[in-house]
Amino acid sequence: MKIDVLSLFPEMFTGPMYQSMVGNAIKNGILDFKVTDFRQFTTNKQKHVDDTPYGGGAGMLLQVQPIFAALDEVQKDQPNPGRVILLDPAGKRFDQKMAEELAQEEHLTFICGHYEGYDERIRSRVTDEISLGDFVLTGGELGAMVVIDATVRLLPDVLGNRESAIEDSFSTGLLEHPHYTRPVEYEGMVVPEVLRSGNHKLIAEWRHKESLRRTYLRRPDMLEGYEFTKQEKIWLEEIKNEEKQEK
Amino acid sequence: MKIDVLSLFPEMFTGPMYQSMVGNAIKNGILDFKVTDFRQFTTNKQKHVDDTPYGGGAGMLLQVQPIFAALDEVQKDQPNPGRVILLDPAGKRFDQKMAEELAQEEHLTFICGHYEGYDERIRSRVTDEISLGDFVLTGGELGAMVVIDATVRLLPDVLGNRESAIEDSFSTGLLEHPHYTRPVEYEGMVVPEVLRSGNHKLIAEWRHKESLRRTYLRRPDMLEGYEFTKQEKIWLEEIKNEEKQEK
Repeated sequence: MKIDVLSLFPEMFTGPMYQSMVGNAIKNGILDFKVTDFRQFTTNKQKHVDDTPYGGGAGMLLQVQPIFAALDEVQKDQPNPGRVILLDPAGKRFDQKMAEELAQEEHLTFICGHYEGYDERIRSRVTDEISLGDFVLTGGELGAMVVIDATVRLLPDVLGNRESAIEDSFSTGLLEHPHYTRPVEYEGMVVPEVLRSGNHKLIAEWRHKESLRRTYLRRPDMLEGYEFTKQEKIWLEEIKNEEKQEK
Repeated sequence: MKIDVLSLFPEMFTGPMYQSMVGNAIKNGILDFKVTDFRQFTTNKQKHVDDTPYGGGAGMLLQVQPIFAALDEVQKDQPNPGRVILLDPAGKRFDQKMAEELAQEEHLTFICGHYEGYDERIRSRVTDEISLGDFVLTGGELGAMVVIDATVRLLPDVLGNRESAIEDSFSTGLLEHPHYTRPVEYEGMVVPEVLRSGNHKLIAEWRHKESLRRTYLRRPDMLEGYEFTKQEKIWLEEIKNEEKQEK
């Protein structure tokens, strides 16, 4: 996969993108990753990339010209323009399904804005507008990194253990069950006995039920379209009773 | 404000956190920011911080001991333990309201997991579990940076222009209207005439209506609890008719 990022702050990417999982994908030749400072493409003498808004108001806006010139550069010699992604609070909410979809692509280009916003005309060359959620960040860089991280980890051979991605939260429709590791006791808190029983059937059942419990308690919205098995229906009734008694 | 981060990958923070807005807040003494590698707190000889899950299964889990020891360290000499935030897909969805709430705090500590997950007992010292959204990241680092960026930009004197934060998407209940900057025409795309009219009343009205249009088209859910003014109701009807004709 080829990923291009257009940003005025290329150094922001050095830490997160060259460390850990994404860094390994680059080293292993799975990911061709490049950050382009689009300031170098501006045709104005002062190397400005932003200007004040028509109609007045606070803040500065990214201009069209440097972005379009940088897009021309990253898209040249490519079989097609690929997906061009703008990080914007008004975009489509990013989720695991979108990450899975992006992981099928050959070329992604992220436009990272800063300042108050973009000249509206930039959107004419954008294929996807993505939002991380209902909050405001200083720039698009962190958002791009999040989308890249979530996407790249789904590429074949990136995660050491392929099982890990399959068992993730959201891929089963339920949140993950609680996990425990050594020691058995820590400051009076003890690992549930069933997990130490060696009985694989009981362990699998406990985990499945606790996944259901966590989802029921924290994200009941995820259960709305969920197709319950007969056993899950029984567990859900048990959980409801158990939680009532807790209170 | 004091922000501590517990992470196995402190270098991940060097780019994003010391650049741009957060970097300026650190330089200007508004933010006291420190990343602690909790591997240094592990008491086992191999410096491991993770171990296999009780009950079997793929992946490794963060152990309690190094995290608790690192928490002891960042909380010592502090008037109170402050908010301890775990980035987790099962957490509460991060939004602008939460950013505003966190911006009131004096001390935030972020625990960034990696590997498959956390030993459940770590949650006993956590005050807030936060999720960025329904997607899975390699680790908690990028999530922590996003929360920090959204929070720190709300601190007094961080943004150069205080107006900017007030006019943001989500603080008015509507998405932002389109913005335009120079030149007037680019590749045949022209800045709307009203924005060049110099008529401040008309400009304000155009922007308000276009905010409403964008919200109606992209995020109708945001309008569900919205309290419309009489004028907004009229605009909304106009928008509905205009969009029908567009099709």
